[in-house]
Amino acid sequence: MQIVELISKKRDGEALTTEQIDWLIDQYTRDTIPDYQMAAWLMAVYWRGMDARETSDLTLAMMRSGEQLRVRDIVTPVVDKHSTGGVGDKVTLAVAPLTAACGVAVSKMTGRGLGHTGGTVDKLEAIDGFRATLSRTEFIDILTKHNIVLAGQSQDLAPADGKMYALRDVTATVSSLSLIATSIMSKKLAIGSSHLLLDVKFGSGAFMKTQEQARELAVAMVEIGKLAGMHTVAAITSMEQPLGYAVGNALEMAEAIKILHGRGPRDISELCYHEVAELLVMTGNAPGMSEAKQQVERAVRSGAGVAKLAEVIAAQGGDAGQVEQPSLLPAAPVRSMVVAPRSGYIAGIDAEKIGLVSMSLGAGRFKKGDPIDHRTGLILQAKLGDQLRAGEPLVEVHARTESEAESVHDALLACYRWSEASVTAGPLIGEVIHPS
Amino acid sequence: MQIVELISKKRDGEALTTEQIDWLIDQYTRDTIPDYQMAAWLMAVYWRGMDARETSDLTLAMMRSGEQLRVRDIVTPVVDKHSTGGVGDKVTLAVAPLTAACGVAVSKMTGRGLGHTGGTVDKLEAIDGFRATLSRTEFIDILTKHNIVLAGQSQDLAPADGKMYALRDVTATVSSLSLIATSIMSKKLAIGSSHLLLDVKFGSGAFMKTQEQARELAVAMVEIGKLAGMHTVAAITSMEQPLGYAVGNALEMAEAIKILHGRGPRDISELCYHEVAELLVMTGNAPGMSEAKQQVERAVRSGAGVAKLAEVIAAQGGDAGQVEQPSLLPAAPVRSMVVAPRSGYIAGIDAEKIGLVSMSLGAGRFKKGDPIDHRTGLILQAKLGDQLRAGEPLVEVHARTESEAESVHDALLACYRWSEASVTAGPLIGEVIHPS
Repeated sequence: MQIVELISKKRDGEALTTEQIDWLIDQYTRDTIPDYQMAAWLMAVYWRGMDARETSDLTLAMMRSGEQLRVRDIVTPVVDKHSTGGVGDKVTLAVAPLTAACGVAVSKMTGRGLGHTGGTVDKLEAIDGFRATLSRTEFIDILTKHNIVLAGQSQDLAPADGKMYALRDVTATVSSLSLIATSIMSKKLAIGSSHLLLDVKFGSGAFMKTQEQARELAVAMVEIGKLAGMHTVAAITSMEQPLGYAVGNALEMAEAIKILHGRGPRDISELCYHEVAELLVMTGNAPGMSEAKQQVERAVRSGAGVAKLAEVIAAQGGDAGQVEQPSLLPAAPVRSMVVAPRSGYIAGIDAEKIGLVSMSLGAGRFKKGDPIDHRTGLILQAKLGDQLRAGEPLVEVHARTESEAESVHDALLACYRWSEASVTAGPLIGEVIHPS
Repeated sequence: MQIVELISKKRDGEALTTEQIDWLIDQYTRDTIPDYQMAAWLMAVYWRGMDARETSDLTLAMMRSGEQLRVRDIVTPVVDKHSTGGVGDKVTLAVAPLTAACGVAVSKMTGRGLGHTGGTVDKLEAIDGFRATLSRTEFIDILTKHNIVLAGQSQDLAPADGKMYALRDVTATVSSLSLIATSIMSKKLAIGSSHLLLDVKFGSGAFMKTQEQARELAVAMVEIGKLAGMHTVAAITSMEQPLGYAVGNALEMAEAIKILHGRGPRDISELCYHEVAELLVMTGNAPGMSEAKQQVERAVRSGAGVAKLAEVIAAQGGDAGQVEQPSLLPAAPVRSMVVAPRSGYIAGIDAEKIGLVSMSLGAGRFKKGDPIDHRTGLILQAKLGDQLRAGEPLVEVHARTESEAESVHDALLACYRWSEASVTAGPLIGEVIHPS
């Protein structure tokens, strides 16, 4: 087989065969195909797209490029959950322990934050001693013993994806729908849970700017799951404004704990409970959504959810005391309040800009490998549709120094749009995509 | 400047600025931009194309990536001639000395053959002792002294093109019209003649399969010439069948000498004389085509043309005696005749397949750097539209061995299509594109 022929084929809009895709990924993983040829192929894919069969073939080839955990051979059902990422997205921190507390095993590998979006691993590492890097044996042991494991992404799973993602990042081929779907799903298939719930975000703070794009991506991933034999459901949810009130690692961990206690912000709490209920229904642990939601409420009220988070954190070396008493979480030395510059209704909060402000305070990374400060971030005091008077609290800044806090005030004010007339925030959950 | 931004910009169909293109080529030439990023950009260019200003800017940036000969500062006018290549294309071997014999300086760098197409340098090297590799000083000296120079392509001119072409070759981005135009013209601009005549071929034996595509390429190159201040005219000519009768290096050299003597095949001879006349008109050395053609006829009749070829070949170390007496040219040991398998009119001769047969006899290269045999090749005995009886001579094979000659008989017969009804070959010159 000749790689130049495969590039020409995709360049001319034709579909590659299963055999050709397997060969391409196998050779690329072995470094037999150089980056410059893969880069040309990736740009051709960006241009021409891939059909459902090709996308699924590529995903499976990438899955086979490395180790496969097959967690469903160890415990069944076992669920996985993935969010395409956003600002203030601490949903996994609440959904995973609540689901496990409801009796369904959760096997989760999760990434680090980059740019304006945070990463679940970073939020977990706000807890003293927490270890996200687990060996295969540790991963399986913790999952078996505690019905839940929350690890960092292993480089041994789908290494072709790691290699290809790094190349896409420097060749302007990241934002291809087929390639995004493939990248996410290859890692999920390599873990090998029986069920997968995807949270595909849209809006200013998300990678997908419109609900239409989010739906396309969701449909592609649900289709891959179906073809690969993993029961996959996708919720399409809004990232028009940051999720909840907290943005920043320790701050988001504290908010997730509130959600587990039933004392979190209403919108994000409902989203979390809804996702857990979906997982319970998907896995057959509840006959329908209303019964499932009752189970979730019980796990919240009884404290089983928050206890499960403390349990898994302790199992991974973390200080469970910080879950039990969130005031012990690391805190930034400086707090400073930004107040409403005018009276009126909040008509818009630019989630991406909020994420960038939080990043500039040290809570996020400009580039991979940058160190972060788990203490810093923002606590919004009001959300979309809230009515404020001039001078009332708008955002609380958690910073390392007075001058760093001061330096973001103007940028924060620029994140807000105001209105004289009342404004209503849209629903968080746009729609849910089930396998066809 | 960020290369990823430039890739995204082109990917999204936007035009790069002059400054961005200059930076891109400068950094790529210095190896600061890696091949994988250039490959992604090239595929985006293949997809989105470039407008006339971008194409011209890219050409100029590539021209500036290395040495510039500026031959027009040494002698004016000075013409250059380029053919996009085909099978049996010995036009340059006749046009260059005839033009010089008519008093217009000719500065020509020319390439080697690859695949089914031949290269002018290979044909010149059929002559014993001929040296195509000249230093800058030698090139200028020979041009100044003899009004003509015929050299191999210098690697010091437009090195960005050499580097980029090698990358395009392995990333399926060769057949982009803008990139082809840029590649050809950057080398021509680096030589820096005052006038340039392009011969853009179309048909089965050419890179451009249709006259439409050839016209598009011709218009793009004439436009670049105009924007860069080089008076450029393009003839669009047919490569539906091989040019003339001879295919192979020494064989084509002998046919070129016949053309210079006025005893060549009628179609290709007329094409050559027409091209010389165009050059005389372009440079103001003749007031119109009819006067120009009279000058050409005189140079043929007087023997000035063939004498000029002998002169430049001697100046470059070659055996001028082989020009004066072509029977002294190296000859293949075996000659074998393939005869017409049926009676009828020749309705088609597949030029590309003829070129591949000649290559398989040793006259061409499968890949760059392959050695070639200057003696081997084919002499067609009949052309499109000729009527033959079964058993009459069709093609004479010039081979190294009997078995090699034998081995191509079937492939040769497969190059021909026959018809009961009479067939007329179309004109060689489709149209001529002048600057707008």
